[in-house]
Amino acid sequence: MAGKTKEMVESWSFLDTADSNFRPLVVIELAKGTKEETIEWFTKRIVDKKANGGAQLLIKPLVTENGVENIYLVGASHLRLLLGAEAVGLVKECSDNSMRTFTYSSRKTFKHYADDNHDFLTMAECQYIIKHELENLRARDEKMIPGYPQAKLYPGKSIVRRLLTSGILVQIFPLHDREELKKLSHSWYGRVKIGYQPLDDIRCYFGETIALYFGFLEYFTFALVPMAVIGIPYYVFAWEDYDKYVMFATFNLLWSTVILEVWKRMCAILTYRWGTLLMKRQFEEPRPGFHGVLGINPVTGREEPMYSSIKRQLRIYLVSLPFVCLCLYFSLYVMMIYFDLEQWALDYHKENESNFSSLMLYVPSIIYAVVIEIMNLIYRYAAEFLTSWENHRLESSYQNHLILKVLVFNFLNCFASLFYIAFVMFDMKLLRQSLATLLITSQILNQFAESLLPYWLQKRYNRRMRKRMCSTKTDMDLSLAEQVNMEKEMGTYLGTFDDYLELFLQFGYVSLFSCVYPLAAVFAVLNNITEIYSDALKMCRVYKRPFAEPTANIGVWQLAFETMSVISVVTNCILIGMSPEVDALFPDSKMDLVLTVALVEHLLLAIKFIMAFVIPDKPRDIQMKLAKLEFESLEALKQQQMQLAAESLKE
Amino acid sequence: MAGKTKEMVESWSFLDTADSNFRPLVVIELAKGTKEETIEWFTKRIVDKKANGGAQLLIKPLVTENGVENIYLVGASHLRLLLGAEAVGLVKECSDNSMRTFTYSSRKTFKHYADDNHDFLTMAECQYIIKHELENLRARDEKMIPGYPQAKLYPGKSIVRRLLTSGILVQIFPLHDREELKKLSHSWYGRVKIGYQPLDDIRCYFGETIALYFGFLEYFTFALVPMAVIGIPYYVFAWEDYDKYVMFATFNLLWSTVILEVWKRMCAILTYRWGTLLMKRQFEEPRPGFHGVLGINPVTGREEPMYSSIKRQLRIYLVSLPFVCLCLYFSLYVMMIYFDLEQWALDYHKENESNFSSLMLYVPSIIYAVVIEIMNLIYRYAAEFLTSWENHRLESSYQNHLILKVLVFNFLNCFASLFYIAFVMFDMKLLRQSLATLLITSQILNQFAESLLPYWLQKRYNRRMRKRMCSTKTDMDLSLAEQVNMEKEMGTYLGTFDDYLELFLQFGYVSLFSCVYPLAAVFAVLNNITEIYSDALKMCRVYKRPFAEPTANIGVWQLAFETMSVISVVTNCILIGMSPEVDALFPDSKMDLVLTVALVEHLLLAIKFIMAFVIPDKPRDIQMKLAKLEFESLEALKQQQMQLAAESLKE
Repeated sequence: MAGKTKEMVESWSFLDTADSNFRPLVVIELAKGTKEETIEWFTKRIVDKKANGGAQLLIKPLVTENGVENIYLVGASHLRLLLGAEAVGLVKECSDNSMRTFTYSSRKTFKHYADDNHDFLTMAECQYIIKHELENLRARDEKMIPGYPQAKLYPGKSIVRRLLTSGILVQIFPLHDREELKKLSHSWYGRVKIGYQPLDDIRCYFGETIALYFGFLEYFTFALVPMAVIGIPYYVFAWEDYDKYVMFATFNLLWSTVILEVWKRMCAILTYRWGTLLMKRQFEEPRPGFHGVLGINPVTGREEPMYSSIKRQLRIYLVSLPFVCLCLYFSLYVMMIYFDLEQWALDYHKENESNFSSLMLYVPSIIYAVVIEIMNLIYRYAAEFLTSWENHRLESSYQNHLILKVLVFNFLNCFASLFYIAFVMFDMKLLRQSLATLLITSQILNQFAESLLPYWLQKRYNRRMRKRMCSTKTDMDLSLAEQVNMEKEMGTYLGTFDDYLELFLQFGYVSLFSCVYPLAAVFAVLNNITEIYSDALKMCRVYKRPFAEPTANIGVWQLAFETMSVISVVTNCILIGMSPEVDALFPDSKMDLVLTVALVEHLLLAIKFIMAFVIPDKPRDIQMKLAKLEFESLEALKQQQMQLAAESLKE
Repeated sequence: MAGKTKEMVESWSFLDTADSNFRPLVVIELAKGTKEETIEWFTKRIVDKKANGGAQLLIKPLVTENGVENIYLVGASHLRLLLGAEAVGLVKECSDNSMRTFTYSSRKTFKHYADDNHDFLTMAECQYIIKHELENLRARDEKMIPGYPQAKLYPGKSIVRRLLTSGILVQIFPLHDREELKKLSHSWYGRVKIGYQPLDDIRCYFGETIALYFGFLEYFTFALVPMAVIGIPYYVFAWEDYDKYVMFATFNLLWSTVILEVWKRMCAILTYRWGTLLMKRQFEEPRPGFHGVLGINPVTGREEPMYSSIKRQLRIYLVSLPFVCLCLYFSLYVMMIYFDLEQWALDYHKENESNFSSLMLYVPSIIYAVVIEIMNLIYRYAAEFLTSWENHRLESSYQNHLILKVLVFNFLNCFASLFYIAFVMFDMKLLRQSLATLLITSQILNQFAESLLPYWLQKRYNRRMRKRMCSTKTDMDLSLAEQVNMEKEMGTYLGTFDDYLELFLQFGYVSLFSCVYPLAAVFAVLNNITEIYSDALKMCRVYKRPFAEPTANIGVWQLAFETMSVISVVTNCILIGMSPEVDALFPDSKMDLVLTVALVEHLLLAIKFIMAFVIPDKPRDIQMKLAKLEFESLEALKQQQMQLAAESLKE
């Protein structure tokens, strides 16, 4: 690369701020061999004035020993970041402890604000603002990316998204802050301790979506503790009385409703404190992969790619739906093979009774559990491919279709065999054994994939880095160039989807057949405690720092967990009804038994819905604070109108 | 009353507009013998400038033959009304057919707007604006109403509400527009015709809440027609095969889900057209009857009466709840008496078999139906008293508690006997007979109370008016004073509560036991057709004109109807399961029958929930229009911020 562009970039950056003030926040990696005119045009757009359609950010090429490597560091002046905070609608705490949308003109009223306090915005917030500004860098009259005639542009198209889809831009990622990260990881998982995670610190470093996941994981673990505690004596004293199981199941059902409702309140408390509960939703852009013929969007009135909704519906119903059904069928087919294996193992055990053969009894379940995990993994890729082929315009619509596909398949894949054993074979002993094997195997597999594997990767990567730098520097002493080069090779965190899915399936194992295997909650608690540590390690050490994503709740997962809890009412009622002890209570008439079970089930469901309706989703003090804000904005509007009215009537 | 006040009032009014321009919109009736200083103060506040805390409206005393009668006419200048329209957040149609919140500064962009077009706002809208302005006339430094030391005021208290609660203000009501009313009633119920009601005209005259009720009534009637049509052959051909009943019930269940979901879409179309779908919710004031000790409201920061939430909870759970339970018990007790009567009638019929005795069989049901209606009526008053004694701060909270109380009691009172006959006595013949008698009797009673009684009242009142005025003038020729005097004596329409409740109970009769009595839908359709006419007559002729109330949906009634439709799935499945024909399909095992019924029920419920989830609540084009508005407001905000940013960065 010629020095000209580099020089220009540096001089542009210099327009706004002294070089010494430049704090690198975000890294942009362009493909090797990107044409110079493209780089020139792109960097000019980034530093250009807002009025000229630029992002008015600062940019500097990264210079390493090997020269310039098409890696750029992006930063912004303090003022620019404050204005960006207003543009993204950040909500911060005021001096009077209320949460308000930040505006530059009212900046003095915010807590910790001072013109020279550059920590007013956290680094994660600054990075989020820069990402937002970069993504909102839009084409004006350019018909294509300069130097790449095949990468078409149209007025209003996000330049960064086009650069990404055409492969010129390899990646954009935020930089880690070594010092902060060390502090965070120390307080988070550095020492063995009983206590809460530093959620606020996690949120400051990783953003709200990830902090909320860890908040949910922690809450869910604590919420499972009562179930686990009640479940232990069943194992210790080998209680087999069904009246005790009935009590346990009833407690479970009501408890699972309560914890899901209370979570909504906890979530409101957390996101109010973080400001995201009050954040206005931004208008959603077409997702990066969306393609179509240029047309006029009736909503925005802008020219953008359009894709017929009918075509998408056809793809969904004629291709995706049959494919999902086929996968479900295949999953059931595999299940039947598992039962054949199970039968074979049982026969083998009967023929040659030995320690080995009784161990063999567990083998089919373990194999099946591994196969389930592998099928889930493969299906996951297929679902992603199909959903992106369906060409959804919005990311949220894409996510909903993907989650629906994955949830349905994973639910059937994981639980079909248990349903079959419980309600077709009526074999409670086998059910308990299968449940235990499936749960424990899947937990071990997940722990391996999430904790041991990352640990090994990290070791390998540390070794490699040391070799490269031929030095014994610790992470803290790395130069910026070394840090960037190290981080750009790290894996990318793909979001909380898989983590939530794992918890969802765990919730299924714990609640669906809780009256048969009370120990499930104990395993779940143990798993989740290590899960917190391994997930924390993964976030801090294994992956690139992800961009912060503001969010006000856990979204569709709340619905998924609630649906699971409704299904578990039905399954538990049937299981209890089938137990010989309950059977014995109705010696004369099976009819009465079934009717009683049906009645109890309907009552429990009714209680669930009434409880969900009665428990307010937000605690009273949050409600009051929200009402106060609403009142103030209405008052302000009224004042404005009164003034206008007074003026108009005076004329 | 001395002429001084009158003179002052007239001169004040004159400040704003020529007397000839004054168009009376709203009538204020003060109590006879109200002190002069009070009247002077009140009228001064009404006409005073906004800047001085007045409402800046016009007011004129009504002069009749008997002199001034403490009746005042309120109007407003055209400009004042336009500013008021902005203050209440009215949404009107723009020249480009989009719906936008009206602001005075953007007035030229609205359809039909012209500075001299005084019909831009409908009369109902003008009256709503005046009501809003009067209610927002607030005390400033007055400690009490002048002349009435016991009627305390505090800063920010609505003066009109205090005047109403202390009995100084008898009533405020909007005037009818004789000409408009004649046109409306002609197109609405004046001629017998097949076709839709003029909903847009109804909305212009009576406001959105009432128009939406008539819209729902019409929609619901049309939606019942397919059920009625399918139900007729069951009666004509005396079909008794249960497979046919099963088909009918299944159709009913799915149909009732579909119509409730489709109504949401219809409702969105109507309220979008009327602008209320986009109207921002106003901040809710304490309801008129709310009392307490003065304190600081934590939300508004203003001094206002506070009432401890714990005290209210105690009243609800220690008094209201036991009372409701007692009423429910009493209702069940009355039901048991009805069954005794029924038994007696049966015995009588057996002993002396004759035409008379077979007629006697219907007497207990008819008596019971009448008693049910009377009990509902008495309970209604008790519920209103109790709920207002609970001292809810907000009207919405009062309404929700009242509706819950009334719904639970009416549901049990009307349907308990049917449930008892169906699921305890298992007497399908009696069920059908009871259902028919209850439905038809209650419809006849309601028609009488809503159509014949009003007609008679109207006749009597016409006679009285004629006598009074000693003339043969028709309604059109009445002077303003005569019109006001006539209207102030008319009854007050108490809202749509009773009308919706009637439809709700009718929906229960039609859907809960639909597989036993398919003819119920036919009666419901016939009833609703006459109901439209009688309700229309009631609105136009019997009651005072009500103030328009903007609303975006039918609120809690949607939930009530949906709950009823869920309950009806359960009842219908059980009824079908109990039928001998279905029984015969499972000759070997009653168990299989019950399990099959339970399975079908769960499937139907699942389908219901999935359907409710899948069918979007708003039609696609309304969604697009809403998205467009949201996009525009976000764009405007962005533009504003960009300008600010450009300016800030320039400095």
